[in-house]
Amino acid sequence: MGQVFQHATVVSIGDELAIGQSLDTNSKWLSNQLTAMGVRVIEHVAVPDDVQAMLAALRRLANNADLIVATGGLGPTADDLSRAVLAALLGDALVRDEVAYRELEALFRKRGRELTEANAMQALRPASATCLSNPHGTAPGLRAQYRVADRAVEVFMLPGPPHENRPMFEAFVAPAIKRPVGHVIRARVIHHYGPAESEAARRLGPLLDRDRNPLVGITASDGVISLRIRYEGAEEDAERLIEATDAEVERVLASHRFAVVDDPGAEVAPPIYVALLEELKQRGATLVTAESCTGGMLAECITSISGSSSNFVGGFVTYSNELKHRVLGVERAVLEAHGAVSGETAREMAAGAVRTALHAQIPGTHETHALSITGIAGPDGGSREKPVGTVWIGRASSSDVDVEARRFVFPGDRATVRRRSAATATAMLLFHLTGREMPRMLWQVEPDGTPPMGG
Amino acid sequence: MGQVFQHATVVSIGDELAIGQSLDTNSKWLSNQLTAMGVRVIEHVAVPDDVQAMLAALRRLANNADLIVATGGLGPTADDLSRAVLAALLGDALVRDEVAYRELEALFRKRGRELTEANAMQALRPASATCLSNPHGTAPGLRAQYRVADRAVEVFMLPGPPHENRPMFEAFVAPAIKRPVGHVIRARVIHHYGPAESEAARRLGPLLDRDRNPLVGITASDGVISLRIRYEGAEEDAERLIEATDAEVERVLASHRFAVVDDPGAEVAPPIYVALLEELKQRGATLVTAESCTGGMLAECITSISGSSSNFVGGFVTYSNELKHRVLGVERAVLEAHGAVSGETAREMAAGAVRTALHAQIPGTHETHALSITGIAGPDGGSREKPVGTVWIGRASSSDVDVEARRFVFPGDRATVRRRSAATATAMLLFHLTGREMPRMLWQVEPDGTPPMGG
Repeated sequence: MGQVFQHATVVSIGDELAIGQSLDTNSKWLSNQLTAMGVRVIEHVAVPDDVQAMLAALRRLANNADLIVATGGLGPTADDLSRAVLAALLGDALVRDEVAYRELEALFRKRGRELTEANAMQALRPASATCLSNPHGTAPGLRAQYRVADRAVEVFMLPGPPHENRPMFEAFVAPAIKRPVGHVIRARVIHHYGPAESEAARRLGPLLDRDRNPLVGITASDGVISLRIRYEGAEEDAERLIEATDAEVERVLASHRFAVVDDPGAEVAPPIYVALLEELKQRGATLVTAESCTGGMLAECITSISGSSSNFVGGFVTYSNELKHRVLGVERAVLEAHGAVSGETAREMAAGAVRTALHAQIPGTHETHALSITGIAGPDGGSREKPVGTVWIGRASSSDVDVEARRFVFPGDRATVRRRSAATATAMLLFHLTGREMPRMLWQVEPDGTPPMGG
Repeated sequence: MGQVFQHATVVSIGDELAIGQSLDTNSKWLSNQLTAMGVRVIEHVAVPDDVQAMLAALRRLANNADLIVATGGLGPTADDLSRAVLAALLGDALVRDEVAYRELEALFRKRGRELTEANAMQALRPASATCLSNPHGTAPGLRAQYRVADRAVEVFMLPGPPHENRPMFEAFVAPAIKRPVGHVIRARVIHHYGPAESEAARRLGPLLDRDRNPLVGITASDGVISLRIRYEGAEEDAERLIEATDAEVERVLASHRFAVVDDPGAEVAPPIYVALLEELKQRGATLVTAESCTGGMLAECITSISGSSSNFVGGFVTYSNELKHRVLGVERAVLEAHGAVSGETAREMAAGAVRTALHAQIPGTHETHALSITGIAGPDGGSREKPVGTVWIGRASSSDVDVEARRFVFPGDRATVRRRSAATATAMLLFHLTGREMPRMLWQVEPDGTPPMGG
């Protein structure tokens, strides 16, 4: 079953992408899937809803790739042009697909709506193409074979919405791909918290050489340094060579390592949150959050992971000072003397969150940890003593009277400061739980968290 | 100052993009900026860290575009190849830029670190290129002119991190672009909550024709239908023709309209949250949130907007039932009789959030509104009576004894159900505040919110 493909390209169709109104998330997901199946993705392209641009892109990509996976442009409106473009590419007429038409009729009947002419257009396909059934929406996908000289290029066109194209990819594209016998592409990603990217690169040295196999790639995101080990070659050497490279990476970055992912396509949430939740599960522990400047982002990231409810009690977004006092018990005198953005407030927020959580413990767990975040995300609200990006992170535990707070100054805009705050708080607890506290974390301004005199 | 560009392409460089490990957010931002400046973006391309692939992409794009803006590959590590590729494209040698070198030295001195050889590489540039100063990171950008036959193509290479490339775009790329005299591209985006995309398209009819100017494009995201009116032509007709199209759109979708944005590039948060915050500000009202299945996402979206602290009291992420009782005062009997996912629980959560917020009112405001969300985001936890995607949304106000709850079944995976829940809750309050309650919202399963018998 299926065919071995050498080179794939991923095409995203839509004016909203070309002009930058919408973010293209399909290319990432599709590339990840294809890479995991041993197909090398050589390019992503995004083109506007324009017949000539779409046609030119498909013709060009067909010269270099034997698999093209496109998304978008299959809907019921006049700017959905993918069906017409595929017909033009193939030199086919558009014909009505009777099965797709009956499926559309049934779908509209079930929804108590009439099948309009616009929607019925979605049952059209180029004569030599096949329709791909879409149980999650109205637009069927398309599959066709395009011949260039003596080569065949397999073209899949999937609907734009991720909740429609992902199941369709799994149902129709994945089964069409046969993994090459003996020759494999394997990837392992190793996540680290800190150090700075250039320091990590210095320590890794020749491991980052571009002619190495396995190849090691480095990316940095909100303090997380992810090293991607990518092996391509004979299957029997894959495991041994990846392990050997992994060991070399560990030798220079062991104290920062927190997760190893062998199927990078499966990641659903940023790895630092997944790692913390995993650690909490293993310890029978729970988390409670108390957030100010991050406004719920830390809780949101943790709960984006399915199954988090077994280890996440809940969270407080105490944006106003009065709520910090009323809900978390932060003393008004502390807020007045030190301000909302202070080590004292961060400590009291974390301690207050632990107290509340103790009354709402989740059955089967026996310790609770709290993280608090209070800071100035900007762009307004900064001062000379507390510039924009100043964030205090507090940590408290039911099993430990010690309450910790650290001060950071995160570079970046509002969204970046918030993301880095949530990720750093998570790393602070994770490395504490695994007994590997860093004396000074990335972006931390004082190693011991003691506030400066008068601060 | 500056030059008129006809056609731009945006290039993103990096293995992590090609294999789908990272999401490309730069292309969206850059395209948005360029479009707003009257430059038509004809294509986005993402290529891996590979000299041949990068070179081939740049050469090809130079045939169709007179402006190329690339991001990525300028860092200090061995897989950062953009400098070398630009040199190869231009046929130049790499030389050290003395100004950039001194800036790097100064930056490292300030950080108390030594300038390593790897970092010093970042001061190299192709002989005919210029370095663009980077106050937010170590990698300078590059600007060069590439000649194809008798045409000149302006090439900008910016660093990958958004907080570095955005200021650099504004400092160096934007001033290089001259708007064409008399000929303009103008866009207006009109946001609506509901109806379904196909129903909106049916009502719009010929307004969606592709040969129309202004062109109307439609996108749907989590219940928000955004219509993009795009005009290209003589400046003196722009305002009048955009207004005329806007009026036609309003005629068929007035009851769903909630925001009109004339500079789409400026949008920082999903428009429904911006619109609600705006409405709260105008009324001197505040919001408090009580979330279960969305885990803080609603609070996070609201607080992603700068200035939200004047109208957002805070939020509760009551993931566990005990916390719903302890913090929001949901009766244990209600939780036992109806379950956490029920209209009764949603109403009590909202009412409890209002009560708490009354004690923590923000000075200058005089009414408080609460939104509560409780549901089954999946993939686990569904049942026959309450399938995955079942979500109750509650709304309560300090100015109104009436507490409303509506039941929805949102299609999609965990992340989609959560996003749609948060957006729908926001729309429910926004349309209530503007006196335009919808009897039945998109994805709502009963118009009046009365739970089914025995439910």
